[in-house]
Amino acid sequence: MDFRTDLAIEIRESLPQKTPDGIKTATFQKNGAKVTKIKITNQNGAEVIGKPIGTYITAEIPNLTKYSCTDDEILSMLGELLSELLPKDGTVLTVGLGNENITPDALGPLSCSMILATRHISGELAKSVGLDGLRPSAVQSPGVLGQTGVESAEIIKGIVKQINPSAVIVIDALAARKLSRLGCTVQMSDTGIIPGSGVGNSRAEISKKTLGVPVISIGVPTVVDAKTLIHGIMGEDTPLKEENQNMIITPREIDLVIDRAARLVGMAVNRALQPHISTEEILMLL
Amino acid sequence: MDFRTDLAIEIRESLPQKTPDGIKTATFQKNGAKVTKIKITNQNGAEVIGKPIGTYITAEIPNLTKYSCTDDEILSMLGELLSELLPKDGTVLTVGLGNENITPDALGPLSCSMILATRHISGELAKSVGLDGLRPSAVQSPGVLGQTGVESAEIIKGIVKQINPSAVIVIDALAARKLSRLGCTVQMSDTGIIPGSGVGNSRAEISKKTLGVPVISIGVPTVVDAKTLIHGIMGEDTPLKEENQNMIITPREIDLVIDRAARLVGMAVNRALQPHISTEEILMLL
Amino acid sequence: MDFRTDLAIEIRESLPQKTPDGIKTATFQKNGAKVTKIKITNQNGAEVIGKPIGTYITAEIPNLTKYSCTDDEILSMLGELLSELLPKDGTVLTVGLGNENITPDALGPLSCSMILATRHISGELAKSVGLDGLRPSAVQSPGVLGQTGVESAEIIKGIVKQINPSAVIVIDALAARKLSRLGCTVQMSDTGIIPGSGVGNSRAEISKKTLGVPVISIGVPTVVDAKTLIHGIMGEDTPLKEENQNMIITPREIDLVIDRAARLVGMAVNRALQPHISTEEILMLL
Amino acid sequence: MDFRTDLAIEIRESLPQKTPDGIKTATFQKNGAKVTKIKITNQNGAEVIGKPIGTYITAEIPNLTKYSCTDDEILSMLGELLSELLPKDGTVLTVGLGNENITPDALGPLSCSMILATRHISGELAKSVGLDGLRPSAVQSPGVLGQTGVESAEIIKGIVKQINPSAVIVIDALAARKLSRLGCTVQMSDTGIIPGSGVGNSRAEISKKTLGVPVISIGVPTVVDAKTLIHGIMGEDTPLKEENQNMIITPREIDLVIDRAARLVGMAVNRALQPHISTEEILMLL
Repeated sequence: MDFRTDLAIEIRESLPQKTPDGIKTATFQKNGAKVTKIKITNQNGAEVIGKPIGTYITAEIPNLTKYSCTDDEILSMLGELLSELLPKDGTVLTVGLGNENITPDALGPLSCSMILATRHISGELAKSVGLDGLRPSAVQSPGVLGQTGVESAEIIKGIVKQINPSAVIVIDALAARKLSRLGCTVQMSDTGIIPGSGVGNSRAEISKKTLGVPVISIGVPTVVDAKTLIHGIMGEDTPLKEENQNMIITPREIDLVIDRAARLVGMAVNRALQPHISTEEILMLL
Repeated sequence: MDFRTDLAIEIRESLPQKTPDGIKTATFQKNGAKVTKIKITNQNGAEVIGKPIGTYITAEIPNLTKYSCTDDEILSMLGELLSELLPKDGTVLTVGLGNENITPDALGPLSCSMILATRHISGELAKSVGLDGLRPSAVQSPGVLGQTGVESAEIIKGIVKQINPSAVIVIDALAARKLSRLGCTVQMSDTGIIPGSGVGNSRAEISKKTLGVPVISIGVPTVVDAKTLIHGIMGEDTPLKEENQNMIITPREIDLVIDRAARLVGMAVNRALQPHISTEEILMLL
Repeated sequence: MDFRTDLAIEIRESLPQKTPDGIKTATFQKNGAKVTKIKITNQNGAEVIGKPIGTYITAEIPNLTKYSCTDDEILSMLGELLSELLPKDGTVLTVGLGNENITPDALGPLSCSMILATRHISGELAKSVGLDGLRPSAVQSPGVLGQTGVESAEIIKGIVKQINPSAVIVIDALAARKLSRLGCTVQMSDTGIIPGSGVGNSRAEISKKTLGVPVISIGVPTVVDAKTLIHGIMGEDTPLKEENQNMIITPREIDLVIDRAARLVGMAVNRALQPHISTEEILMLL
Repeated sequence: MDFRTDLAIEIRESLPQKTPDGIKTATFQKNGAKVTKIKITNQNGAEVIGKPIGTYITAEIPNLTKYSCTDDEILSMLGELLSELLPKDGTVLTVGLGNENITPDALGPLSCSMILATRHISGELAKSVGLDGLRPSAVQSPGVLGQTGVESAEIIKGIVKQINPSAVIVIDALAARKLSRLGCTVQMSDTGIIPGSGVGNSRAEISKKTLGVPVISIGVPTVVDAKTLIHGIMGEDTPLKEENQNMIITPREIDLVIDRAARLVGMAVNRALQPHISTEEILMLL
């Protein structure tokens, strides 16, 4: 496979029709979206698909950019899918990966700016303002290695040791193979993430293995690699000038696409963590 | 020609080797850049190249992103080339076209934020702060039709009638055919501009014909149209899905590329208009 | 009166109790806000209050920052009050005054970024997307003199001549005398505006006299002048160091206050101009 | 003392002339700035001045806003003063405290965006690009409790445990008593910081005691508390309405003041950590 994608669904599509051993796929409709669950159940499946054993859920939402972050159908769907992957109780630390100054990479930090932090709100205070039963939520965007000098994985590990969450959610922008998936697909998995793997700057792994707690990843594809597009069209032997290696393909209105996707992902996390608080209340509290 | 480019030099490259009647081309090195001057001298040339009669100057700067806005060699080169196209005296109105909220389209407004406005500074005041001999400069970024409901051409025409400049400079992001030109090529011309022509949202023309004063355009290519790239590789008959029509190709670090290009273009305009004020002084005055 | 305020209501409060000739005041509750209408009906009233003949409406909203831009009660109130001042038909040009880079001065440009421009949408197109009966709306933020070299009044006059609106709305940040009014008071008037008059950088007047069409102003106080506060407390004879002349008093969370106020003002303009389009639809269209 | 200030120099000024036991003060001129060093040498001094034992250095720069971040005299002065407080070797973690979305509180995060992170650059790589002898530098802006749900002190402690720096620098916006000090005073100390102490939202201490490594703080006053100003003028018994408790006084152009101060502080840290790299080179590398 000489193309770059972070989407399990796209790797699955590129495999022969007959389901390989160790890979199970289920597809269904939910609240207007097409949901595909791929379960990698053994080492053979992991090798065939090139990703760790675990569950990969993809929701394809026709024209995500049309949905505002208050669209209840879509938020309910995403919130429920995410809840299935999360432990029922305990503090959740949500981490926004990526560089907020590089538009197609800003999904993580932007999503996090929409997520309600509640870990510091005592039960008494919450009760007094009518916010009973808040789940403790912590939120952090650690920046990127070039700006901080510290691997995101190290920063998160340090925070995890301080606050002992029951799970970590990591949000990151993804690379897709097909242009048609940009900005309208949400992938969740319970296998953690290797940040930047899709965009070619592979960083230290963030997973249960490295952090000691479950790591749920959420992402939306925002770019197609130029190399992937050209090789996909021309064949893998097509030579590519070095100057073109760093090119990406995005929708023209990438800023808008990222903004909408970040609102949706952020609000979906809120829905999963604080199912009793309405989107409107959360918008007032941010 | 089934590809989209705003660069006269790329249209010229696509023509047969033998110079058509009505097109003159000269190429030379200047302060480390390769400069190409294309003069379209008659209607035949204009038809062949698909652009109005006039002068098109292209400066190709190896790795523009490496140059800061204080690089004196590059600023001198651009300032001098621009000065050749401008009238020697009188107020100059510089206009930043494009949408500052859409990164690859933000070159115009961002450049304008680096340009010193002086029209309101009286001679007395300028003298008292040691800024003798300022050329009157006005600066405006009118926004885009979808946000203002008014064509940029109409807004500029209204302002021109109020302040009677001797020339208008319009700055806009351009589309190129070759990825290698993104962010490292500056095109200037004395023929005005049809905003958005390269990116496919053609707007009302901004030119001497419509405004009554000379209109000098400056632009830097920031995107390649996905259609142009794919047709360039595959041939013009390749069918393209509608969803892909709106895709663009940019460098991964498009935000950085735009930021650097805008500083350079803005400072080049300052150099041309206020040759006696150093870049450092201008940075302090902005 | 040695204090700076842009609010007619505060000047009225500072006058002797007995109503002077030429000033009529009415106060009532509307949708949870306290509304005060001050009519200046003759030259004596204008001189006493230091503002032109016309109507000044002030809505005091307890804790504006608690209201989101989708609070229907508040938007209906503001939209109706504004509608009373506007002509029933024709294009409306809304202008955002002030410097979007200086937080307490950014109300105008930020509000404008929330206002739907429709002048360019043809009746056919509007009908096809279910947006019948749109009132033509144009929107522009001309920037400030120091950045453009052109008075806002000149720019607006130029645009007015091009597009012939039936009225102009100008939005600007105001100065108040009382800290308690910051961010929770909206003033509207039909007398136009002298931009920066409250903040001490008086600019060219924008009014029916200078533009030839009715000019409705909307503003929210965002600062109290330090001099005004100190003189109010200490008496007018208190000497003030020059370095303190340029100081202002704002709420600590001024960025948040401006953001909320801008959303509210912008949406109130939408409500007045497009009463048949819901706030949610407008948010999707922006 | 019923006024809020983070500046040791202002507390010292409010004390009786005769130097109390345990406080030593020295004042000198350095590169155009007035520098005051206050050493608190014993517990009596600490109690009198209300701050921990240690060194507090204040540089008063006439009109800081006039200096660009490339002013070499000022940077050298600040860099040298800071170097005196830092250990000679080892990784330094610089932390930007405060909320980047609230202008007067954004000094820390903005300064950090100007600081070169080098900890991830191997000696080999540095040598190959001509950057020998870089001191390892890590940079992090942890956000504020309301947005993250985690105390900044906890986040920093977690990172410190992961990367074992030889010292931590914390940058934060300060409150002053005198308006004349806003934006033109830099305070450094070797006693760490209680974030938000000056602005009234006291957080967990960040110091050698809590982190186990030396903590150097740097700050610039950006606000005067309205209560402090009014009580300073009127006497401490003046009653203050609750609504006014949250008001602050800032220069009108607070955004500009913060921007310039952040560039200066950030570049001063670079100067102290990477004395062999010029400001221009650093600007290119950021």
